Amino acid sequence: MSRTVIESKTKTVVIGFDEPFCVIGERINPTGRKKLAAELEAGDFSTVEKDALEQVACGAMVLDVNAGVVYNSNPDPNQTEPPLMRQMIELVQGLVDVPLCIDSSVPAALEAGLEMAHGRPLLNSVTGEEERLELVLPLVKKFNVPVVAISNDDTGISEDPDVRFAVAKKIVERAADFGIPAHDIVVDPLVMPVGAMASAGQQVFALVRRLRAELGVNTTCGASNVSFGLPNRHGINAAFLPMAICAGMTSAIMNPVRSVEMEAVRAANLLMNHDPNGGEWIRFARVLEAVKAGASFAEASAEAAAGAASGGRSGRGARRRRG
Amino acid sequence: MSRTVIESKTKTVVIGFDEPFCVIGERINPTGRKKLAAELEAGDFSTVEKDALEQVACGAMVLDVNAGVVYNSNPDPNQTEPPLMRQMIELVQGLVDVPLCIDSSVPAALEAGLEMAHGRPLLNSVTGEEERLELVLPLVKKFNVPVVAISNDDTGISEDPDVRFAVAKKIVERAADFGIPAHDIVVDPLVMPVGAMASAGQQVFALVRRLRAELGVNTTCGASNVSFGLPNRHGINAAFLPMAICAGMTSAIMNPVRSVEMEAVRAANLLMNHDPNGGEWIRFARVLEAVKAGASFAEASAEAAAGAASGGRSGRGARRRRG
Repeated sequence: MSRTVIESKTKTVVIGFDEPFCVIGERINPTGRKKLAAELEAGDFSTVEKDALEQVACGAMVLDVNAGVVYNSNPDPNQTEPPLMRQMIELVQGLVDVPLCIDSSVPAALEAGLEMAHGRPLLNSVTGEEERLELVLPLVKKFNVPVVAISNDDTGISEDPDVRFAVAKKIVERAADFGIPAHDIVVDPLVMPVGAMASAGQQVFALVRRLRAELGVNTTCGASNVSFGLPNRHGINAAFLPMAICAGMTSAIMNPVRSVEMEAVRAANLLMNHDPNGGEWIRFARVLEAVKAGASFAEASAEAAAGAASGGRSGRGARRRRG
Repeated sequence: MSRTVIESKTKTVVIGFDEPFCVIGERINPTGRKKLAAELEAGDFSTVEKDALEQVACGAMVLDVNAGVVYNSNPDPNQTEPPLMRQMIELVQGLVDVPLCIDSSVPAALEAGLEMAHGRPLLNSVTGEEERLELVLPLVKKFNVPVVAISNDDTGISEDPDVRFAVAKKIVERAADFGIPAHDIVVDPLVMPVGAMASAGQQVFALVRRLRAELGVNTTCGASNVSFGLPNRHGINAAFLPMAICAGMTSAIMNPVRSVEMEAVRAANLLMNHDPNGGEWIRFARVLEAVKAGASFAEASAEAAAGAASGGRSGRGARRRRG
């Protein structure tokens, strides 16, 4: 059984076939978030702080940290990303105790993140592109960390799932040449939008089964991509996640501040027998009750987490703070 | 590929591996509905009418009809069920054009239903109990209809999925002795409450894969049983259905008037590539918009269905009727 061990200073998270689904919070990422990019350029980290605290309260087990800004003052990410990655990781580690996922396409930023992060972070990512393999795998080996392997190569992203499987296999084999074991590779088989490719869902389910059976690796994905361009995206995501989990997917990089998707993940954990006695489900049902009563999902989750941390039931904790 | 063909006078529904998930509406059933039982005893069929129309509007492809009342005036179901079954089927066939599923534990009521129903109804059910096999399979053969096979036998319901598989296999083999092909058997592998048996979900997913691979049969279940006794049942059901569909389940006997579960089924159809161009999903998303705007799910579904039937888009149809 493949167990991918990720650690912060104080916490261990295992991605594995017999573990609850690993929710990797995607929010700390300025890509496509102009306001956040401008804040970061101005040295304002308040959104990063909020995103870190909210995501962990809502159930993120690992936080992705991406420093992919393009500053107006300096358009070269090779110069701007490494120091920003250090700052963000230091900040996030000071706020929350979950392990981190260091996310960059700039190798120097990956290395800066690896130097800064406590414990055993997940590196995000290597692809099957020759240059990336040669740059990233030595870092993976040097720092002895697990890595996300994305199934595209120098020819791009194939629409043929057999080609994407072959790329994943190549990365696993190349990693083995560096002495990196398969259980430290978390393959992202690439989720296409089902609105553009009708077989996208089935492709992922089949690939996940195959990656697990033939390569013995854990898997991850950018889950929300599947619903791109369609109406009522949360409804599609909330069916996709349980289906992927049933097929054997073991983690996703996703937004944990969305209650619909988190409800689907927690229900799937229960149905996969990864929630002993339904304790997590019952606690989560109380959070949803608070949401129905008017709280935001992030607020209700934070209240429940604070109540649990203070040793009381969330309800009592909530009353104390209100009183 | 197993294709189970069910027909009304005018409509054909196929349960199959390459078909959209077959939603069998469960509402027309007085078991556990005291008010409905009393109405039926008094000759009042208004609830049956409402249940028939609402379920079809909400997306039921087949309607289960169960006449399992115990009258105060006559406690013998062998006397009361057959004539009531005839009445209910006549009524429902006059209202809606979907195929029916004739549901009784009284063989004479099954036979009455078979005589009354147009086309090729689904018979519900036979079990692995010797007496049931000998009583029901001849009816299945005589009327040339498909049948639901429930995986319990004279020893009861086993908690061991291997035993439940063996019971299903026995029923398929016994049916073959009567000349009934496997594609006319729809196996219910029995869904246990996950709150009472933590492995209940995984058992069903594994059984469905096996029933499909080894016996080549379609499958069904009473889906909501999985969440019995737990809070926020809809959330569990809405993850269970996509997971079961991903594992290969091809139908369920369920309440189609619940939007959360129907949303999960429709999203799963889309993700299984059983919704060409996403047309059904996009239409359903409009219904959910109407629900957000204050309509009940049944009302919004009926408006959309009427709009589609009149040849216009649901929005225009709705406006016309309101004007």
